[in-house]
Amino acid sequence: MVHADSSNFASGVSKKQAYTQILEQAKALFDGQRNWVCNTANTSSLLWHALHALPSPSDRVNWAGFYVLDPSKSGQLILGPFHGKVACQTIAFGKGVCGVAAAQAKTQLVPDVEKFPGHIACDGDSKSEIVVPIVADDKVVAIIDIDCAVEHGFDEEDQTYLEELASVLSTSCDW
Amino acid sequence: MVHADSSNFASGVSKKQAYTQILEQAKALFDGQRNWVCNTANTSSLLWHALHALPSPSDRVNWAGFYVLDPSKSGQLILGPFHGKVACQTIAFGKGVCGVAAAQAKTQLVPDVEKFPGHIACDGDSKSEIVVPIVADDKVVAIIDIDCAVEHGFDEEDQTYLEELASVLSTSCDW
Repeated sequence: MVHADSSNFASGVSKKQAYTQILEQAKALFDGQRNWVCNTANTSSLLWHALHALPSPSDRVNWAGFYVLDPSKSGQLILGPFHGKVACQTIAFGKGVCGVAAAQAKTQLVPDVEKFPGHIACDGDSKSEIVVPIVADDKVVAIIDIDCAVEHGFDEEDQTYLEELASVLSTSCDW
Repeated sequence: MVHADSSNFASGVSKKQAYTQILEQAKALFDGQRNWVCNTANTSSLLWHALHALPSPSDRVNWAGFYVLDPSKSGQLILGPFHGKVACQTIAFGKGVCGVAAAQAKTQLVPDVEKFPGHIACDGDSKSEIVVPIVADDKVVAIIDIDCAVEHGFDEEDQTYLEELASVLSTSCDW
């Protein structure tokens, strides 16, 4: 199988099937490869293509990617690999949905970003968001960030699978 | 302007206008930010959205991103940020279009990848390719890699502007 086939998700699959394929493909891609840039780059592609193969609201995802600890400034996240429009380069811990997830080491499932205190609008099209921390050695090292162009874009099923993906990424990469 | 607006390219612009906007946006985004992951992540988004705003064949681009020197193995490239389907994680210097561009420090403009000796098929949909080396301190540190789903997807105008972009990236990032 060529690598690009990993991004092919059958139309009409369930959310469970799509995330199960993401997890299987991610584990296969990470086998023998611990570089976090390489692995998050391929994971952002998997997430983007999987979610776009699902029915609405998942197919309205307009940003899927990663922020990681900024090596040049403590308490700050910096943009990592993603799919979507150009994004904010840095986010302070505690600021916006990403910053709160990082500061609290806790998933943020936000049905309406306009109602989230201190929301950072990198893209006015984003209406809902889920942010899942990646924790390694008891420290948040990165976050998975996914935006959707409609409200209520994500549910507890997304959260469950994305937290499993975060766990796989935590142990599969050198952060 | 919110960051996502950087990715908005007016439909019907010329290739010259699209690349001029890419270069202007890239320089603005890199101002005060030298992290190469962050900067190549945003640049892959700029390239993807700009090329898709252009008429065929540019709008048939199916992969746009970066490979960088693999810190874990000399003479090898490793996947960086990109937009498109899942990609090969590592490429040896001298292998395929990317590897030859890196080994020779020379742009490869390939109208038909099937005719390129030793072509690596990460995605069977890719029919043409352009790879531009990023050189810093007389050493190739990364490459810009763009694939197109039709033959003859790129021309000398793409090459000229992408080499200018590579030059901007060379001096704007800590590699």
